[in-house]
Amino acid sequence: MNKVEDYVRTIPDFPKKGIMFRDITTVLKDPDGFKLAIDQLQSFLDGVDFDVIAGTESRGFIFGTPLAYNLHKPFVLIRKAGKLPAETVSQTYDLEYGTATIEMHKDAVKPGQKVVLVDDLIATGGTIEAAARLVEKLGGKVVKMIFLMELAGLKGRERLKDYDIDSVITYPGN
Amino acid sequence: MNKVEDYVRTIPDFPKKGIMFRDITTVLKDPDGFKLAIDQLQSFLDGVDFDVIAGTESRGFIFGTPLAYNLHKPFVLIRKAGKLPAETVSQTYDLEYGTATIEMHKDAVKPGQKVVLVDDLIATGGTIEAAARLVEKLGGKVVKMIFLMELAGLKGRERLKDYDIDSVITYPGN
Repeated sequence: MNKVEDYVRTIPDFPKKGIMFRDITTVLKDPDGFKLAIDQLQSFLDGVDFDVIAGTESRGFIFGTPLAYNLHKPFVLIRKAGKLPAETVSQTYDLEYGTATIEMHKDAVKPGQKVVLVDDLIATGGTIEAAARLVEKLGGKVVKMIFLMELAGLKGRERLKDYDIDSVITYPGN
Repeated sequence: MNKVEDYVRTIPDFPKKGIMFRDITTVLKDPDGFKLAIDQLQSFLDGVDFDVIAGTESRGFIFGTPLAYNLHKPFVLIRKAGKLPAETVSQTYDLEYGTATIEMHKDAVKPGQKVVLVDDLIATGGTIEAAARLVEKLGGKVVKMIFLMELAGLKGRERLKDYDIDSVITYPGN
């Protein structure tokens, strides 16, 4: 196997009927799969001028921290509300049912810094759009959004058309 | 600065009065700090014979995945109940108030495999003990537990005296 998608396991009807869940634990469990995933995400940053990598809780941490280590860049946590101990900025966004709030430390990004956002998956793009708002509230600039997987049918790219987006794997559906 | 502890920020009274919260976001935000942290955790595995690295949600992912990448070992997720999509084993443990349940995929560890557990912090040791139970339920053997920080006053080491434990930073109190 030499494509990352060969390592992804698809689980039907999780977390609910009709959803084809793309399970990354089988990528992580195979060192060759995980190396491919990280190396391909990293290749999206070749020649990109940036200062900081930020990842969203918790699967953004999985892919973001090896990149930060390899490229010797700061890593910033974007967490669910109430988990970060110092002063934060927060952003609320819509889910299918209800809303969610994410936060970032106020001192995590300095005005003018160029930020790369990392997550495992872009679906509708709601979470990553909220993450971008956090960076922008602090005066940072999102120069790139990178994902292991993209569910093209949910049109996250259209919603985020002002951003530079790259995904390792694109699934046509949702 | 050339010790990891110089990068840790201490925040008094988080999440509640009387707790000195050890904030690792300042380690992650400085590439030199994060490199030191990962390299020292990795040095605990020099000469250790193991098959798999497992980390607990979500800060165990932060430190576990760079190690798995660097050492070309499988990485296994230990998550809060209900988040893993395939068949799981689960373990419930006591918190200060109430209980928590963590899970691991049944196919994450094979009988006889040697497992290293990674987390950011050992306090009372309740979470990591539950994580060890998960590994053992699947027939795996925990050969090492490694942490960035240890709160020695909470006596996690005594509770886990049958395991081989290493921590980068030891705080005497709680």
